[in-house]
Amino acid sequence: MPKFQKHIFICCNQRPATDPRGCCDPSGKGDLQRVFKVKLAQRGIKGTVRANKAGCLDQCVHGPNVVVYPDAVWYGGVTADDVDEIIQSHIIGNQPVTRLIIPDSCLNAEQCPHKTKKIE
Amino acid sequence: MPKFQKHIFICCNQRPATDPRGCCDPSGKGDLQRVFKVKLAQRGIKGTVRANKAGCLDQCVHGPNVVVYPDAVWYGGVTADDVDEIIQSHIIGNQPVTRLIIPDSCLNAEQCPHKTKKIE
Repeated sequence: MPKFQKHIFICCNQRPATDPRGCCDPSGKGDLQRVFKVKLAQRGIKGTVRANKAGCLDQCVHGPNVVVYPDAVWYGGVTADDVDEIIQSHIIGNQPVTRLIIPDSCLNAEQCPHKTKKIE
Repeated sequence: MPKFQKHIFICCNQRPATDPRGCCDPSGKGDLQRVFKVKLAQRGIKGTVRANKAGCLDQCVHGPNVVVYPDAVWYGGVTADDVDEIIQSHIIGNQPVTRLIIPDSCLNAEQCPHKTKKIE
């Protein structure tokens, strides 16, 4: 088999509950990554698409964060309820889920509307 | 700032020393990821290139494994001594380091020359 058609990195970084940046994996057990993994397996595409645990993706205030490569599509605020849509629309259908995308203007930005709101 | 120009995922997965698949992060401290991180910072490109911890990248027998996106270039057997060359040649110069690349025929393969050799 060749390279993964899609490689999904799910942030499993933990921060204290009091951290104003939030925490992508509150349980510390990679729950969101596991949901992706199970649902990919159910669709029979586990071999060509990988749901990968990742350390901090450095977009903390937008989390829980997920980035899909090689597309370089960034999602923020992802919950288990969003996984079916991401897989069906983006991973299988190549149509990213617009409502969850972190805008380019917010990626790696020192300030953005979300950052200001959450940290202050 | 926009998306990362290069996003480097370094496997920090641990397996027991007796596991025939080997272990990408024997110390369990993400040593290789830290070397990437420090050397990117030294070159002043920490903001546009990220050295990210990753869970198992599923190419265990080729490890320590590193994958660079959005290029989808896979490296195997990476050591701290290789980091300068990867950064200089590939990350900055866009010329992947051929000698470290995991061949496409080995990626996600049930059998490959390396797998047979190491597991038997």
